[in-house]
Amino acid sequence: MKKIINTTETLIEDMLAGFLAAEKGQIIQSDNNPRVLYKKNKTPGKVGVVVGGGSGHEPLFFGLIGENFADSVAVGNIFTAPTPDTVLEAIKEADQGAGVICLFGNYAGDVLNFEVAAELAELEEIEVCNLPIIDDVASATYEKRTERRGIAGDLFVIKEVAAAASQGFSLERCHQLGQLANKRTLSIGVGIAPGTNPMNGKANFELAEDEIEFGLGIHGEPGLERMKLLPARELVEKMFVALEGELATYPEKEVIVCVNGLGSTTMMELYIINNEIQQLLSQKGLKTVDTVIGNICTTQEMAGFSITIQSLNQELAELYQVAADSPCFFKREVKQ
Amino acid sequence: MKKIINTTETLIEDMLAGFLAAEKGQIIQSDNNPRVLYKKNKTPGKVGVVVGGGSGHEPLFFGLIGENFADSVAVGNIFTAPTPDTVLEAIKEADQGAGVICLFGNYAGDVLNFEVAAELAELEEIEVCNLPIIDDVASATYEKRTERRGIAGDLFVIKEVAAAASQGFSLERCHQLGQLANKRTLSIGVGIAPGTNPMNGKANFELAEDEIEFGLGIHGEPGLERMKLLPARELVEKMFVALEGELATYPEKEVIVCVNGLGSTTMMELYIINNEIQQLLSQKGLKTVDTVIGNICTTQEMAGFSITIQSLNQELAELYQVAADSPCFFKREVKQ
Repeated sequence: MKKIINTTETLIEDMLAGFLAAEKGQIIQSDNNPRVLYKKNKTPGKVGVVVGGGSGHEPLFFGLIGENFADSVAVGNIFTAPTPDTVLEAIKEADQGAGVICLFGNYAGDVLNFEVAAELAELEEIEVCNLPIIDDVASATYEKRTERRGIAGDLFVIKEVAAAASQGFSLERCHQLGQLANKRTLSIGVGIAPGTNPMNGKANFELAEDEIEFGLGIHGEPGLERMKLLPARELVEKMFVALEGELATYPEKEVIVCVNGLGSTTMMELYIINNEIQQLLSQKGLKTVDTVIGNICTTQEMAGFSITIQSLNQELAELYQVAADSPCFFKREVKQ
Repeated sequence: MKKIINTTETLIEDMLAGFLAAEKGQIIQSDNNPRVLYKKNKTPGKVGVVVGGGSGHEPLFFGLIGENFADSVAVGNIFTAPTPDTVLEAIKEADQGAGVICLFGNYAGDVLNFEVAAELAELEEIEVCNLPIIDDVASATYEKRTERRGIAGDLFVIKEVAAAASQGFSLERCHQLGQLANKRTLSIGVGIAPGTNPMNGKANFELAEDEIEFGLGIHGEPGLERMKLLPARELVEKMFVALEGELATYPEKEVIVCVNGLGSTTMMELYIINNEIQQLLSQKGLKTVDTVIGNICTTQEMAGFSITIQSLNQELAELYQVAADSPCFFKREVKQ
């Protein structure tokens, strides 16, 4: 394994130290638990926003701490949910007196540990709502959508819930809006070459030289189909087919798009993919209000990408436009 | 070759179309030359800032077009300098009546084509200054530093020259400040695994499974030494040794740092590397004013990274602090 690390034992602590060093004191490590980072500036009376999940997907999740964004993060081991203790500490750091909403990908370990942490927090009189993110359409049908996994759509759902919190909305309202964002955020991914688990040097899946995995999960979970590599246009068309049916159920015509790289897929390819998806959206009469292109939700040096489309309604459009400022995502103030 | 493209013939046009689609009309493609992109908003009387180089290093260079940043870009073929015609058109689009400064990596093809373009522009009565960027300390000694290649230090030099232009400084002053930034910007890179040229599927260099190339150039140019993979701490220490002598010649104690990924090196690794470099800087009594961590100057899916350190003086510190806003680099307005 050719990774530039010190030891597997210190991997996550070294990584967090390097991240914190770049943030010049605006993001702080909890004295009580080194796996909890939080935003220095507090806003009394605001709903707290906790995010978290396993490590290895950087810049998710800690890269989303910031102004009008997440208040704290619970950091797990590589590809492993944060412990209930860690989540509880993240909840305490995010708590600003109006309850706390926790957002995380919908994986069994995360769901369990965030649930336990929420119960522990309630014992300490902090009201907590959990919102597992469920954007990966390849992982379950529309009927079973609460079983879907969370992938790069995390970005949009977290951004909007954090915007709701920053506007002073109640915990209940933040949760409602989060459910709305969750339902309208649809992603599909493709795996092209595996990434390597830095703890053991093992590839997270195997593929032949001319094969790709359609609908692959970010931990190498099997997709819908193993198939031959296609040109960008055909591949993106096939991906769009997996999204458009559900997308068409919403009457609104404005969308936001994220073309997310899983690690080693080049920006060149992501731009080419964006060109294809924008043409398809346009053909369907959908207008893209904003596009994010980059490596947000990765799996080490895995090659592949996902396309996320969120169908905006008025509420989501307003929340998405709220300025935000975090190490890995910046949203400009809209000039009137 | 497993890249998600349509055809090699349309590669660059597809990429530029996908980039432009995400920029919602703020960055525009020249009607006269599709390889020239420019910022929509003009500022009459400001020095124009042109950047450019070969494709394949995305998000460089077009990702640096924006407010208080580059005005236009000349886009070359994969790993190939833009043609003089393309550079000339980029100069014309950047010209706002006060002359134009062109910044590009110091490679023979780029130097030649930008020189020819400058001469052609002078014939059309546009005054042009060229500033080849020379930050890679592995590529030539201090005495021969004008022969050094440009790598990720491009970011800081371009950012500061563009800030000077946005402050209304003259072409001559922008050029002087650019030379200052150039001299004080020092980088060193390490190659860990090759990237693939998307035009022919060929790897840009070869390395054994346990080897790295110390001082490798971004096109796979040979480095200073081929060596065994080292733990992060030892490797970064060795890299710092290559920078610190020259760094110590400046009396000022403030620096800015860029930890740049070359393509498939994970953010996890880049944060770990930053942790090491920050400790070394601190031990030398140097204070890091700002840190950029990410994939700015890449070579497709090449694994590896570079460390750039710029020694700030008062002038550079002020230029660096000027707010800037481009697709791949954002600098916040400093709150007083």
